[in-house]
Amino acid sequence: MMKFQFSPILPDLAAPKAEKLKAFEELMAKPEIGFFRLPTRLDLVEQTKSAYQKFSHKKVFVHVGIGGSSLGPEMIVSALGNKLKDIRFLNNIDPDYIFKQLKDLDPKDAVFFIVSKSGATAETLASFALLCDWLAQHEVGEDRFKEFFIFATDPVKGELRELAKKYSIMALEIPPNIGGRFSVLTAVGMLPALFAGIKIEELLGGASEMAKDISDKKEKHSLWTLAEHLFFQFKNNQINETVIMPYSSSLKDFSAWFVQLWAESLGKKHNLEGKTVNTGLTPIAAYGATDQHSQMQLFMHGPLNKFLFLIEIAAFENDYSLKSSFESPLFKKLAPFTLSELLKAELYGTLKALEKEKRPYAHFTLQKLSENQLGGLILFFEALTALMGQYLEVDPFDQPGVEDGKRFAFEWLERQV
Amino acid sequence: MMKFQFSPILPDLAAPKAEKLKAFEELMAKPEIGFFRLPTRLDLVEQTKSAYQKFSHKKVFVHVGIGGSSLGPEMIVSALGNKLKDIRFLNNIDPDYIFKQLKDLDPKDAVFFIVSKSGATAETLASFALLCDWLAQHEVGEDRFKEFFIFATDPVKGELRELAKKYSIMALEIPPNIGGRFSVLTAVGMLPALFAGIKIEELLGGASEMAKDISDKKEKHSLWTLAEHLFFQFKNNQINETVIMPYSSSLKDFSAWFVQLWAESLGKKHNLEGKTVNTGLTPIAAYGATDQHSQMQLFMHGPLNKFLFLIEIAAFENDYSLKSSFESPLFKKLAPFTLSELLKAELYGTLKALEKEKRPYAHFTLQKLSENQLGGLILFFEALTALMGQYLEVDPFDQPGVEDGKRFAFEWLERQV
Repeated sequence: MMKFQFSPILPDLAAPKAEKLKAFEELMAKPEIGFFRLPTRLDLVEQTKSAYQKFSHKKVFVHVGIGGSSLGPEMIVSALGNKLKDIRFLNNIDPDYIFKQLKDLDPKDAVFFIVSKSGATAETLASFALLCDWLAQHEVGEDRFKEFFIFATDPVKGELRELAKKYSIMALEIPPNIGGRFSVLTAVGMLPALFAGIKIEELLGGASEMAKDISDKKEKHSLWTLAEHLFFQFKNNQINETVIMPYSSSLKDFSAWFVQLWAESLGKKHNLEGKTVNTGLTPIAAYGATDQHSQMQLFMHGPLNKFLFLIEIAAFENDYSLKSSFESPLFKKLAPFTLSELLKAELYGTLKALEKEKRPYAHFTLQKLSENQLGGLILFFEALTALMGQYLEVDPFDQPGVEDGKRFAFEWLERQV
Repeated sequence: MMKFQFSPILPDLAAPKAEKLKAFEELMAKPEIGFFRLPTRLDLVEQTKSAYQKFSHKKVFVHVGIGGSSLGPEMIVSALGNKLKDIRFLNNIDPDYIFKQLKDLDPKDAVFFIVSKSGATAETLASFALLCDWLAQHEVGEDRFKEFFIFATDPVKGELRELAKKYSIMALEIPPNIGGRFSVLTAVGMLPALFAGIKIEELLGGASEMAKDISDKKEKHSLWTLAEHLFFQFKNNQINETVIMPYSSSLKDFSAWFVQLWAESLGKKHNLEGKTVNTGLTPIAAYGATDQHSQMQLFMHGPLNKFLFLIEIAAFENDYSLKSSFESPLFKKLAPFTLSELLKAELYGTLKALEKEKRPYAHFTLQKLSENQLGGLILFFEALTALMGQYLEVDPFDQPGVEDGKRFAFEWLERQV
């Protein structure tokens, strides 16, 4: 299980009130909030595996989705994928980018996984339309769509569900009680994970263990300690930004996934009572050691408004000796060590410097980057997001702030006709 | 030349004072500040080209650097690279990541470009040491280093310069008056650009045109308008975060480059008089349309503390029709348009929604994503960063906040022996 340490500069806080704990437990048990109990939905795993078996002969898996439908799978594949299959993400509607993804692709090698919870995401349906046209140019007609597409969408509603019926396309279920940004452990993330050679039962097992640990330890779990510290500092105007910084290139995309989860869940105009609050904690993506040569100057010496989450991988699979025969001082200093020791030293040096500069942090340690540990990390940050929603008194499961932009976009289009 | 538009919600401001303009002109002309005049250094271009000619037969170009030594080249290659050569970046000291980059590599195909301005970057020298060891395992000895390595470093100082002499390794010059995060238009970025098929004279030409435009238009240039708006809002506590959001997947890494430039240049503990100020504007990387399904909820409805820079590409090289025969409402709505029209509509919809929500923005338009336009964009943001340093009264060219972390890291290592 993951380890947690908090900066020694953080104050001692009283335990969270019993009613807060009860409210969170009730929220996690609500039928319409599914993510906390998701890892036990073995029926969904079977559905995903049968889709994989049907298409496992395909050499190229193309994931088509945007935002929460894509950031989760990108994160899992880049953290744990074995790179044996070619996995591509059509996660934007930039035509030059789509051209690059399609230009060397032979349709017979490819399966396209079209992901939209609502079945009504304009970007994703636009990509589906152009892929149908692209297939037609390669002499694949509607009657053969079922050989090239898999959908993931709401089990009943939406335009994708209708198309799936019409063309007998396999359509996996995103449970109605799981929003897009909480969907990584559904078929949305698990199907690409299977193509990337990832052991999905172990990933879900790790998430399940974390959910159980949170339920068992109640207010003694570090989840609560962290939420209390974050809220205490936030309400006293000591922080308004949270930095996520794994010391691992494989977890760079984990930061991007977290950014969406945190920004879209907590950045809200109205609180639960309908009062205008314009609240939220800005998430900042970083990764070590690279960002020690980039954003760290700002984190260390800029405004005192950041809380850092630093993630350590205790053991890597590979390592390199830094021995050399070069005479110069720095090479001699490095020679007794390995690369992973240098990486760890940089993390520990940063923790100490953060303490000196009075910048609060939480330090997470995974024993190694495994399915089990990553599953736990995912569930932990999902739960933290939901809990912070409770502290900030906002709905962490909606996203009303993007509706105006969508409406204005279609108005602009209609004026072009 | 790039176009600039500012949100109609921004107030009218008086022109900047003459002494501010004079101080900036003097700063840009200082011998120790080189980036503004860099695009005219044709001698450096010739040096880079000769390195390219010598190694152009190599199939794999491996760039080894961290922070400013890597983010610039990554940005240029991903924006404009033709993907004909295999270009890899060793931009971190994660041993599993390095293993993945090296495992399928045949030394005879590869050239390693080792980049460190100071010649004393621990991560980069560590990577160099392990690469020497890796070459030795492939029976390449010290006598043949010059066939596998190119350096970029200070023309006189540092450990890399010494090694270059000892082993007759070609070592390109990073001019002493160019800091790492301003080095993208030196050999640091231009050598990988040549391997990626990028026309570097046009890139430098675009940068040069932008520098001339800024010098010619003086306080009438949008550079000044933007800086005035940013500073006005910052000093009145209306903003403390700047979002950079190109509507282009190819410019996703441009955002990462900007983040380093802005964070490391402006995030400072002390002002020029030595007073403790803990200042800086937090840069936030985003890209459209993808982030409309991620961070946009926070930008639109969260705290009113953000100034957005939105970058439009007016014309793409490729495009796709969204026509389809599907009956459902959203497909019918999309059918008359192309993908690039949808992308543009989303940008214009976002601008309108930002106005409604009273979120300030600047809207940049490039005619297309070309060498010339990208060169101009780079120089513009470098100049804006230097100018904002002047407004905030900090030194935008140092980074003292990362020294403690380095020192503590080596102390930690020494305790492990």
